[in-house]
Amino acid sequence: MALNLGKRPVSRLRRSPHAEPARTPEELRARLGREKVLLELAQRRSYAYDGIAMGATPALVVLPETTEEVVEVVRFARQVGLPIVARGAASGLSGGAVPLEASIVVSFTRMTRLQIDPRARRAVAQPGVVTARIGEQARPYGLAYPPDPASFRTSTLGGNLAENAGGPLCFKWGVTGDYVEALEFVDFEGRVHRLRREAYDLVGLLVGSEGTLGLITEATLRLVPLPRYTRTLMAVFAEVGQAAEAVSAAIAAGAVPARLEFMDQGCIRAVEDYLRLGLPREAGAILLVETDGDDPLMVEEELSWVAEACQRHGGKVRVARDAAEREALWQARRAISPAIGALRPKRLNEDIAVPRSSLPQVVRAIEALGRQYGLQVVQFGHIGDGNLHPNVLYDPRVDPEEKVWELLHEIARVALRHGGVLSGEHGIGFLKRDFMREAVDAATLEALWRIKRAFDPEGRFNPGKVLPELHSGPGPG
Amino acid sequence: MALNLGKRPVSRLRRSPHAEPARTPEELRARLGREKVLLELAQRRSYAYDGIAMGATPALVVLPETTEEVVEVVRFARQVGLPIVARGAASGLSGGAVPLEASIVVSFTRMTRLQIDPRARRAVAQPGVVTARIGEQARPYGLAYPPDPASFRTSTLGGNLAENAGGPLCFKWGVTGDYVEALEFVDFEGRVHRLRREAYDLVGLLVGSEGTLGLITEATLRLVPLPRYTRTLMAVFAEVGQAAEAVSAAIAAGAVPARLEFMDQGCIRAVEDYLRLGLPREAGAILLVETDGDDPLMVEEELSWVAEACQRHGGKVRVARDAAEREALWQARRAISPAIGALRPKRLNEDIAVPRSSLPQVVRAIEALGRQYGLQVVQFGHIGDGNLHPNVLYDPRVDPEEKVWELLHEIARVALRHGGVLSGEHGIGFLKRDFMREAVDAATLEALWRIKRAFDPEGRFNPGKVLPELHSGPGPG
Repeated sequence: MALNLGKRPVSRLRRSPHAEPARTPEELRARLGREKVLLELAQRRSYAYDGIAMGATPALVVLPETTEEVVEVVRFARQVGLPIVARGAASGLSGGAVPLEASIVVSFTRMTRLQIDPRARRAVAQPGVVTARIGEQARPYGLAYPPDPASFRTSTLGGNLAENAGGPLCFKWGVTGDYVEALEFVDFEGRVHRLRREAYDLVGLLVGSEGTLGLITEATLRLVPLPRYTRTLMAVFAEVGQAAEAVSAAIAAGAVPARLEFMDQGCIRAVEDYLRLGLPREAGAILLVETDGDDPLMVEEELSWVAEACQRHGGKVRVARDAAEREALWQARRAISPAIGALRPKRLNEDIAVPRSSLPQVVRAIEALGRQYGLQVVQFGHIGDGNLHPNVLYDPRVDPEEKVWELLHEIARVALRHGGVLSGEHGIGFLKRDFMREAVDAATLEALWRIKRAFDPEGRFNPGKVLPELHSGPGPG
Repeated sequence: MALNLGKRPVSRLRRSPHAEPARTPEELRARLGREKVLLELAQRRSYAYDGIAMGATPALVVLPETTEEVVEVVRFARQVGLPIVARGAASGLSGGAVPLEASIVVSFTRMTRLQIDPRARRAVAQPGVVTARIGEQARPYGLAYPPDPASFRTSTLGGNLAENAGGPLCFKWGVTGDYVEALEFVDFEGRVHRLRREAYDLVGLLVGSEGTLGLITEATLRLVPLPRYTRTLMAVFAEVGQAAEAVSAAIAAGAVPARLEFMDQGCIRAVEDYLRLGLPREAGAILLVETDGDDPLMVEEELSWVAEACQRHGGKVRVARDAAEREALWQARRAISPAIGALRPKRLNEDIAVPRSSLPQVVRAIEALGRQYGLQVVQFGHIGDGNLHPNVLYDPRVDPEEKVWELLHEIARVALRHGGVLSGEHGIGFLKRDFMREAVDAATLEALWRIKRAFDPEGRFNPGKVLPELHSGPGPG
């Protein structure tokens, strides 16, 4: 499948009616329509933050509805020399959608066209489509779109593509990029490309590039037949290490659960205080596990392997008896983010991924670091992939931010020391950019910069994100 | 999973002991060892061809055994200004491994280290490992490596990575790139990179790039649990269109066969003449279908959906009763290439992929073209993906080559006209390079050239392959 070189004209779109780019914000506004170009400070201010960080107030905000309008914005940005920061629902957790300087923020929230082609098992979606809508629209045809980031009821496809988002289902079903068959994107000159996965795989390059290479304006997504049966269990452990050991044992026994989620004690208590679901406040850790498939006996058998592994490692197992119980368990998982957000005024989170075999040591080491720094750290994540989200909770009025950052850096080092990686699914954005120099070697960083320059020679797209500067200058000359 | 930024030093290798590159072939030979650098014409001649095409005799041939030796070769090539053409088993079918000018051919056939880590479900392999060996070594642990190009008993992993090879299993199980977790590669300056799939996905970019961006020296591959049960059937049809219709119907009924292969009459007869398996010589088409899974009832049920769809479209179905019958059916499939090779002195093949819904028209249109040109065309392929391999068989003593190329071009146009693509899995190489201009738009071709220049600014790696020149010059300046 090296080279799928289909017939795809530069654009099926009508040519932009304007030969010259707009030269002023007012001219752009006249072309696109008043409601699509926000110039007032009060409006612009709302586009300075994402789910975790605050940035610079954008110079202007554009809300395009079509690819042609995105082209207009890119040409305008070139004309006036402003950077472009793409933005969806802004639920991201690494500062990826946050402008760092006076910029044009392109908010894709009005590009919400979605078509399902059940025969071809395919969805064609604009970047502003809310993730959950894709699955909802596919379900009547017996089809599913598996990627399910925790924020999937608010996050948009464009952001998921930018971060190559995963979710609980990613252990068995893969991440966003695994479902992308084709992309439309607008390059730095305002040219529209329609790409399939091919020589060289430009689609794969754009997915996960956090808006630094171009603007994705449409994606063609693969849909899969909905598994007919699912079974869910919750296992309660006295100690976090036991939960990690149970996970390793279940997978070694041959189980490939569709979801495999972990919460530590801080997390359990936060959710329980938030939702009153009756979770065991004294437990050291909880695992939530789901198996799925088309054969009820197999699904049941696979769940029993997991249950046995949990019991062997000291877990108390409760299997959801019906859809309502199942939904309650997953409700707990989805509530983690708002629940821990309610504990302290601020939080910063990690997104490390480590080999499953080192999970017990890593989880314990991070707990110990939290105690050492005197800061509350809660941990949860997609433990099947070894993907953990340690969150540092703090109050900026009493906890010095430097101490928080130092702790985060120490947590990242625990991951790297155990053969892990900095980001499982949230991306680098600007919050983790400084860690990059410790995570990639100089030769590879240069190769990454070469890609950046090949796509974005003028440094137009999302400057200051992902790649740390090579030397003292702004990237290689 | 946007950015998995693990700790990976430039190299775990000892530093090359030579500060300066070798300056003559003799010096390179002295450093690497006599048997690893071939200078004699008689030896070099054997490295001018691949499975389908003949090229220029290489200036020298190097058979490295380690990554350090590959680094030596790249530094030498830079020093003397020669291009580098990577080569594995040379079973490729698009001229990808064929040198077009005086070049250094790097044959990876001696880099055959293979380690299986059953706990991590992972194989670490050098590029010279024969594809089939990976599965053979994994099987004792209950694990499989699914990518199975027809040539997998001779082809090497390096070639599979270069072409992002598929095979019969790709409809359900995916292609080579879907199993790559990490790569080691040597860049144009002779620097060693160790990459995981991350921001930007350089691994995904190198896979399928046909040796034009760098030299892959090691791959870390994901292994999967072996499905416990498989069932195979053969369905015989009077006419090719019926077979194509049965495929669509079976998939619409919910079947996701592990393999789904198609042979037309010319193909059936060629295999029968070659192997005497008792295939029906009068049949218009044969489908070979395999379902797999961990539950015997489900596997059986899925096969029955396929059987019903075949019968509804006029097919006569025979289910393999045991492993021996199953093996005989797949033996027929694997014999296609040598069998049709025996029919005429030469052949050139296409690798088109079209939407399943247009398969009946496409197959019939290609049959008609063969009759119109008075050339024998046989068709087979992974019909589940709509991936067809029309082969034009000819005798260069009587059939003018221009006519053959004209017919190939017409076949490619049939595919493009039906919304298809030029290459499902064999790559572009140089045989299909001229078709690229019709398949990709100018803006995307420029973007592909930008990637090429970012990785290979000196045009060292496999020149003349994949990308047609942009204007009259050798790529953008």
